[in-house]
Amino acid sequence: MRILKTSPSEDGFMMPAEFSRHSGCIMIFPHRRDSWQNGAYAARKAFAEVINIISLSEKVTVCARYEDYDSARKMLPERVRVIEMESDDSWARDVAPTFVTNGSEIRGIDWGFNAWGGLHDGLYFPWDKDNKMARKLCDVLDVDVYDKRSFILEGGSIHSDGQGTVLTTEACLLSGGRNPQLTKQQIEQELKNSLGAKKVIWLKSGIYNDETNEHVDNICAFTAPGEVVLAWTDDESDPQYEMSKSCLDILENSTDACGRKIKVHKLPLPKPVTITAEECAGLDDMDGEPTRTPGERLAASYVNFYISNKHIICPQFDDKNDKTALEILAKLFPTRTVVGVYARDILIGGGNIHCITQQIPAI
Amino acid sequence: MRILKTSPSEDGFMMPAEFSRHSGCIMIFPHRRDSWQNGAYAARKAFAEVINIISLSEKVTVCARYEDYDSARKMLPERVRVIEMESDDSWARDVAPTFVTNGSEIRGIDWGFNAWGGLHDGLYFPWDKDNKMARKLCDVLDVDVYDKRSFILEGGSIHSDGQGTVLTTEACLLSGGRNPQLTKQQIEQELKNSLGAKKVIWLKSGIYNDETNEHVDNICAFTAPGEVVLAWTDDESDPQYEMSKSCLDILENSTDACGRKIKVHKLPLPKPVTITAEECAGLDDMDGEPTRTPGERLAASYVNFYISNKHIICPQFDDKNDKTALEILAKLFPTRTVVGVYARDILIGGGNIHCITQQIPAI
Repeated sequence: MRILKTSPSEDGFMMPAEFSRHSGCIMIFPHRRDSWQNGAYAARKAFAEVINIISLSEKVTVCARYEDYDSARKMLPERVRVIEMESDDSWARDVAPTFVTNGSEIRGIDWGFNAWGGLHDGLYFPWDKDNKMARKLCDVLDVDVYDKRSFILEGGSIHSDGQGTVLTTEACLLSGGRNPQLTKQQIEQELKNSLGAKKVIWLKSGIYNDETNEHVDNICAFTAPGEVVLAWTDDESDPQYEMSKSCLDILENSTDACGRKIKVHKLPLPKPVTITAEECAGLDDMDGEPTRTPGERLAASYVNFYISNKHIICPQFDDKNDKTALEILAKLFPTRTVVGVYARDILIGGGNIHCITQQIPAI
Repeated sequence: MRILKTSPSEDGFMMPAEFSRHSGCIMIFPHRRDSWQNGAYAARKAFAEVINIISLSEKVTVCARYEDYDSARKMLPERVRVIEMESDDSWARDVAPTFVTNGSEIRGIDWGFNAWGGLHDGLYFPWDKDNKMARKLCDVLDVDVYDKRSFILEGGSIHSDGQGTVLTTEACLLSGGRNPQLTKQQIEQELKNSLGAKKVIWLKSGIYNDETNEHVDNICAFTAPGEVVLAWTDDESDPQYEMSKSCLDILENSTDACGRKIKVHKLPLPKPVTITAEECAGLDDMDGEPTRTPGERLAASYVNFYISNKHIICPQFDDKNDKTALEILAKLFPTRTVVGVYARDILIGGGNIHCITQQIPAI
C-alpha cells in the first residue's frame, strides 16, 4: 500500500455514485455500550439483517474487535468476510475510506476523523481507533491510500453523483468542530480535489437534532444523475419543515456539474421518533453522564438507505409512512429490489443503514 | 468462509511442497518482551530483512497487533500488506493455517495450538490469541477452513513433498503435550487425512535443546521430490551427533510415497550457539522466572530456511559454516537465489526463518 500525498483529482481519480456497481461493502460489528442498548445485542441483530441482504449481491467485509470476532462469525453468513480490527464505534460510512477510481484502479481516501466534532462538539473521546481504520482497511484491501488526515471529514457528509457533482451541508462542513481554520471556498476546493468533482451543492441543513451536525446522507441522496430524494414533512409546525424547505429551494435553483436542473423527489419523514426511558436505561453512561435522555428526538429518516448492487435497504420505523417510502424508492430504482429493515435499534445509536455501510466501487 | 468438519484428503485436497509456487506468505510482527530482547526491536529489524526479501517475489501479509500497526507499516516496504491481528507471539509457521489445495482452490487447516505443549511443557500461557489466528487468517484471505482444533499440531512439525510424503519427528508429535490420547497410528492417520499424504516418515528427533520438542523444520527439509537436507555435525562428542545420525539412518532406509529412495544432503551445523548474559538481561521475565539463562544452548540450524518463489532465505550465525551452508543450498536450488540473513535475533526467540513464515500455495 502506498500512502499518497497527492490528491485524487490530479491523479485522474474520482468518487463514483453509490448507484454505480460495487465490488463490496465495509461494515463494523457494533459493541459500544454507550451507543447501543443492552450491550449492543439488539443492534447486532439489526446490523446482521442489513449485512445479510447486502451480502446477497456484494462481498461484505465486517470489522470486528478481537473479542467480538467469534460472536460476529457466528452471527453472520458464511459468505461474509469478518476481519479483526479495533474500533471506537461502528459507523463505517464515517470511518472507512471513501473510495475513488480512475476506471482501472481503486484507491481509498483516509480523511481525518474526530468523532463528529472533536473537542468542540464531538460525540465521544478518544476516537483514535476509529481514525486509524481507513488506512488499515486500504492495507487489507491492498489498495493505495490518500493521506487526507489533516482534513476532517466523514463519508456521511458527502454524496457524489459520479459525474462531477457533490452534495453536502453547511451545518456539518462549516461547523466549528471540523475544519474551522478553512474558509468555505477552501473546503469546497478540497472536496473537488479529493472527490474529482466540478461542482459542490451546499445545502444549509440536514435532519433536526441530527448529532452528526446534520450529515447530508440523512436528508438528501442521489438516486440517478440529476435526481435526488429529499426527506420531507408537510407539517409546518415541525422545525424540520423549514430545514427541508430550505434544501428544496436550493436544489430547485441548482444545476449539477453537467448543467442539468436537479429533479427532487420528496420522501416523507416518519412521525418524530423519540427514545424511551427503558431504552435510555439500556445505554451505559458516558463520562458519568447519560448518553441520551428519555423523550429525546432521534434523527429518523428514510433517506438513510443503502444502495447495493441488487437492493435498496431502507430503514423502517413502524410508521404509517414506512410503506410509502418503500414504494417511492421502488419507482426510483426499478432495477433493484427495495427491502425494508426495522431500524429502531440502529437509530438509537445515532444514525441509520447508510451510516453503517461504505461501498467499494467495482472497476 | 465455510468452517468445514470434513478432512482435506476426502475432499481431494493436499499440502503442496514448499518449493512449489506460492501466491503469498504470512508473517507476524514480533512484540513479546519475554521472547525478544529489548522490546523486540532487534527482532523486528531481522524480521523486516526477511520480509523484504520474500516480498520481492511473493505478496507478504504481516499480522500486527493494534498497537504495533503504525510501527510495522513504517518499517516494512509498501509492497507488503500489514493487517491488524492480535497474537501471543510471532511464529506464523505454527499458528497460521497450513494451506492445502486441489489444484483450483486453496483451503486452510486450523489446527489446535497450545504453545508447544500446553500445560504439560508449553512455553507460555495463555495462548488463546495465537490459537485463533489460523481461522481469522482464512477469513481475511476469504478461503474455507478445516476445523482441526481438536488435534494439536504446529506447521513447523511437518514437511510435505507435495507428492504424498510427510516428514515429522516422534519427539514432537508423540510428546505428552500434543495429543497424548492418540496412538502413533492415529496421529499418522490424521496427518494423512489432513495433508492428503500416503506415507509419513517418522524421524526420532530434531535439534538438541529445541524447545518446540524438536520440530522437523529445524533438522530436515525437502529440497526436491525424493531429496532432503539434514542438519549434520561430525563432532561425535556433541549430543546432536547421535540425533542427526539416527535421522540419517532412518532416511537412508526409507522410501517416499512414490517408492523413491531418499537422497540425503548433509547441511553442516554451526558451532553451538549460546545466549549471553547481556542478551538474557534484555528479555522480560515470564511469570517471575527468567526466560533463558546465560550460556543456554540455542537450537541454531541452517535447515530453518524459507523457500520463496525466487529466493532461499537462510539463517546466518557469524560462523565459519555460514558460507558452506549457502553454497550447498545454492547447488540444491539452482533456479533460486540463496540469500543469508544474520538471524541471531530471531534464534533468541526460539526458532528461525522458516518458523516465522507460512507460505500460501499458488493455484
